Amino acid sequence: MSEAKTLTEAFMQTKYQVAGHGKRNFEVLQEVFQGLDGQLDSDIYGSGKVIEDFQVKMAKYLGKEAAVFFPSGTMAQQIGLRIWCDQKGIKKVAYHPLCHLEIHEQDGLKELHQIESVLLADKDSLITLEDVVSMQEEVACILLELPQREIGGQLPSYETLEEISVYCRNKGIKLHLDGARLLEILPYYQKTAVEVCSLFDSVYVSFYKGIGAIAGAILAGDQTFTEESKIWKRRHGGDLISLYPYIVSADYYFDRRSENMHGYYEEAKELAELFNACPAVSTLPLVPVSNMFHVHFHAQKEQMEPILIEIFEATGIGLTSYLKEVIGESCGYEVSIGDQYAALPKEKLQEVFRLLKEKMKQQI
Amino acid sequence: MSEAKTLTEAFMQTKYQVAGHGKRNFEVLQEVFQGLDGQLDSDIYGSGKVIEDFQVKMAKYLGKEAAVFFPSGTMAQQIGLRIWCDQKGIKKVAYHPLCHLEIHEQDGLKELHQIESVLLADKDSLITLEDVVSMQEEVACILLELPQREIGGQLPSYETLEEISVYCRNKGIKLHLDGARLLEILPYYQKTAVEVCSLFDSVYVSFYKGIGAIAGAILAGDQTFTEESKIWKRRHGGDLISLYPYIVSADYYFDRRSENMHGYYEEAKELAELFNACPAVSTLPLVPVSNMFHVHFHAQKEQMEPILIEIFEATGIGLTSYLKEVIGESCGYEVSIGDQYAALPKEKLQEVFRLLKEKMKQQI
Repeated sequence: MSEAKTLTEAFMQTKYQVAGHGKRNFEVLQEVFQGLDGQLDSDIYGSGKVIEDFQVKMAKYLGKEAAVFFPSGTMAQQIGLRIWCDQKGIKKVAYHPLCHLEIHEQDGLKELHQIESVLLADKDSLITLEDVVSMQEEVACILLELPQREIGGQLPSYETLEEISVYCRNKGIKLHLDGARLLEILPYYQKTAVEVCSLFDSVYVSFYKGIGAIAGAILAGDQTFTEESKIWKRRHGGDLISLYPYIVSADYYFDRRSENMHGYYEEAKELAELFNACPAVSTLPLVPVSNMFHVHFHAQKEQMEPILIEIFEATGIGLTSYLKEVIGESCGYEVSIGDQYAALPKEKLQEVFRLLKEKMKQQI
Repeated sequence: MSEAKTLTEAFMQTKYQVAGHGKRNFEVLQEVFQGLDGQLDSDIYGSGKVIEDFQVKMAKYLGKEAAVFFPSGTMAQQIGLRIWCDQKGIKKVAYHPLCHLEIHEQDGLKELHQIESVLLADKDSLITLEDVVSMQEEVACILLELPQREIGGQLPSYETLEEISVYCRNKGIKLHLDGARLLEILPYYQKTAVEVCSLFDSVYVSFYKGIGAIAGAILAGDQTFTEESKIWKRRHGGDLISLYPYIVSADYYFDRRSENMHGYYEEAKELAELFNACPAVSTLPLVPVSNMFHVHFHAQKEQMEPILIEIFEATGIGLTSYLKEVIGESCGYEVSIGDQYAALPKEKLQEVFRLLKEKMKQQI
C-alpha cells in the first residue's frame, strides 16, 4: 500500500527545477575549494589576506569607504542600526512592517539592542516618500529593503529612492539599505551598485541569494562606521577565528554570477508571463523587477498540491517544493530565478504550462 | 642590505614547529571535504541531518539531554548565561577575572545582555570553594573555565569541583562550564566528559583548540535550555542558513583527535620539563595538567628574541611566533601541544634545549 506523495517528495524527484541555482549540498563548497592552493592561509579573527582583500573588493564594488564581512545579515543589520542609533542618541529606527528584522529575527533588535521599530507603510505596499515625510516619530535611521521581498520583490521608482535619500540627508536621518538582493535589482534600475549605494549611508548585501554562495554578508559604509561594526561583531560572537569557508565561496560565486543578473531578470519576466497566461494564476509583481516574484494560485492548497504533483511527474520539471496558504482560497510560493532556468528543456516547460492551464480551467 | 629578521619571520621559516596541529590553512578544510559525497545536503537554519546528527552525538558525548551547534563560543556562552539569568530573574553572573567573557569579548555580555559580572578569586589564582562560599552578591550563575587558560591552563582538584557543584546546587546557583578545552583536561582528571559535565548545568566546548577544526562550538544542557538557546542564536545572527563547513570539520577532527588527548598531555609534561631544566626559564604550571602551559623567560623580550631566532635558524625548529611581555624583566608565550610535537626529530629538539640552556646561562 503506497501513501500519497507529498509535494516536497514529488519535487525532490524531479529531474529539472525551474528556480534557484541547484541543490544546497556539499558540492557547492567542494567546487570552490578543490582547485585552490591548500597552503593559502586562513583569516584569523578578522585579519589576513583572504578577508581583507574581499572586504576591499566589496567596498569598491559598493562605492563605500570600507566593508566588513559578517557570518550573517541578521548580525550585520542589527549592528548597522545599533551604530546609527548610538550616534544619534535615539533608540528608534523605521522600516517596512515585513522587514526581516521585524518578522524573522526573533526580535533580536529589541531584545539585544533595545531598539524600537516604527513601521512605515501598509504591509502590502511599498514605502513611499509620503510615508517617510509624514512619520511622526523621531528615528535615528530608516531601513529600505530593495526589493521588498515579502511582497514579491517589488521596487519603488528610482526617483522615489532619490527623493527619500535627499529628504533623510536633510533631516539628519541615516538611510540604511537592506540589499540582501541588491545585485538582482541593478538590471531593472539600470544603475551600478555604486550608484544605488550612493543614496545610502550604510549597505548590507548577502551572498546566498542571487549569488548562491553558502552564507555570509557584507556591511559597508564609512571607515568609522565599519570599524565600530567590528567591535559589535566581536560582541555578537561573529568575529570567528576563521570565516574563510564563507568568504572564499562568496568571492567565487560573486565572480561567477554577478554578471548573470540581467539574464535572471529577463527569465523571471518570461516565466511570470507564462504563469499569468493561466486562469486563476497570477504573479506579484505582475511584471517582475528582479529575478524574483511570488506566484499566487487562486485555489486552495489542498486542491493545488495534487495538480502540481501530477505536473511534476508528467514533465519531470519541479516548480516548487512547498505551497503557503495566502488568504482565504489562495496559496502561493516564491520564485527566485537562478542558473537552473536556462538549463530547462523548453518543450518540457511549455508542457508544464499547457497542463497547468488545462487544470486551472477546471478550477474556475 | 638586509634588515634583521623578526621572531615571526624566523618562526615562519622553520621546518618543524613544536606546538599545535599545523598551519591554519585551506588544507584543513580540503582534507575534510575531499572524500565526501558532494550530494549530501546542507543544513538549513539549524535543521537537517548534518547538524542534527552532530548535536545528538555531542549531547551523548557530554552526557546532556541536548546540544546546539554555534558558530562561536563567544555567542554560545553569552547565550547560556543569559538564559540562566532570565530564569532566575537576576542579571548577574560570577566568574574568574581573566574569563574570556571579561577580557576578550568587547563586553558583549554587558552591552548586549546587560548582565553584570562578579569577579571571583585573584587574577593569578584559581577559583576556590572558599571564593564561591564567601561571595556576597547574589548571582544567577557561576562560570568555571577548565583549564583556566590565561594562567597557563591550571586546574582545581576534582574534589574542589565536586564541592563547588554541590554548593551551587544547594544554593540554586546554576553552574556553567567553559569547556573550550574540556577534552584536553580529561586525562589529568582521569574522568570521562560525561562525569565532568555531570557537575555542571550547562557546558560549552570548542572545536578549534585541541580538536583543531576550523571554528564552531557546542552548547549543551537540558532540552528547555537548548531550545531557548536556539531562539537567542537566531537573535545573535548565529542561525546561519548553513553551518556545515564548520560542523563537518568539527566532526571529522573530533573523531581524529579526541583520543589523542592523553598523548598531548604526556608530551606537554615532557616539554615543560625540558624548559624547566634551563636557567631563567620556567613553566606555568610547573607540571602541566593538560596539553597546555605558559613558558616564562626571566629576561626581557628584546634580549630573548635574538636568542630564539638563532635557535630556530640553527635547528630548523620553531618554538613560538611571538613573545608577550609579562611583567618587568620577563616575557613568555603559550604552548598547546598538538599533532606536530610527535613529528619532531628528537635529536633536533635536544639541540634546541642544549642551545637554550647555554644561552640562558649567559643571561643570568
